[in-house]
Amino acid sequence: MNFCSHCGSDQLQLQVPHGDTHPRLTCTSCQQVHYHNPSIICGCIIERDDEIALCLRAIEPQKNTWTVAAGFMENGESTEAAAQRETLEETGMQVGILDLYSVFNVIHMHQVYVIYRAQFVAQTQPMGLESSAVQWFKADQVPWHLLAYPAIKTMLKRHASERQSGRFNLYLGDADSGRTTPIG
Amino acid sequence: MNFCSHCGSDQLQLQVPHGDTHPRLTCTSCQQVHYHNPSIICGCIIERDDEIALCLRAIEPQKNTWTVAAGFMENGESTEAAAQRETLEETGMQVGILDLYSVFNVIHMHQVYVIYRAQFVAQTQPMGLESSAVQWFKADQVPWHLLAYPAIKTMLKRHASERQSGRFNLYLGDADSGRTTPIG
Repeated sequence: MNFCSHCGSDQLQLQVPHGDTHPRLTCTSCQQVHYHNPSIICGCIIERDDEIALCLRAIEPQKNTWTVAAGFMENGESTEAAAQRETLEETGMQVGILDLYSVFNVIHMHQVYVIYRAQFVAQTQPMGLESSAVQWFKADQVPWHLLAYPAIKTMLKRHASERQSGRFNLYLGDADSGRTTPIG
Repeated sequence: MNFCSHCGSDQLQLQVPHGDTHPRLTCTSCQQVHYHNPSIICGCIIERDDEIALCLRAIEPQKNTWTVAAGFMENGESTEAAAQRETLEETGMQVGILDLYSVFNVIHMHQVYVIYRAQFVAQTQPMGLESSAVQWFKADQVPWHLLAYPAIKTMLKRHASERQSGRFNLYLGDADSGRTTPIG
């Protein structure tokens, strides 16, 4: 941020506003305070029979690695709707939400991931521009060494193991420390 | 947003960027795309013996109504840390996180609430400027007709009922429709 988006001035300073506890980029010309807060990433582990669908990333970051269909939640939608929309956009697949599966912080990226288990319904359009491939994998075929992030690997390993047992837990996690905590 | 925060131009237009699906405020001078996404509100239902602590809001919106200690998650912290920090700031109380209790969308406000059950540890500082009172309530003393939002009332009613049974579920919800779904 180089200019105040409210008045256009370049007189921006880090200040702690009255009654606040954090320094904020504040316009000393019009007094507007500019907040920057974490983003929410919503997505799905797509299930069909004993397989899951993963996307090969066509774009940075982590281009040419595999990951779950996920992306930034938009204003005006729920976390479930965001997960379904991102899945449709990246894979072309319509899915039904089964359950919330994982909520984890990526503190250094200022992101919170909200990932659902989802049932494949139909391929309704081609995959999107953010994917260069979408592929179904049985647990022993998942490209474990080519996944986008350690937190995705941890989650998918757990999912593969729990799928065998047929009982899924919800996990809270912290990608920076690697900590995960089962709920319930 | 009246001016581009990157270059200071006022040539902002709603456009769908290449490869995107949503219209974004785009600077036609420097091509910067400005995203606006939902915010995360983290907070706690503070428990001590058979009581919970609520805050009387000193500020708008919903000034002079009671609610749980909660506020905007900041960059650089986890959802748990945000819930504890907001609780400390608004009530002056140090708390220990017990469990994730409710995740709900407030779609028309572009917010996702992440609310924990937390155990009171100690009063370590005075309550903050955002509260005009902090008070302990048994379930039958909660000012049910003076709570800030219907979703808060739904959650606290459920909490009171589950506390009697001693078994808590995690709930996903949607404040706009009133829908809640238990997990596990």
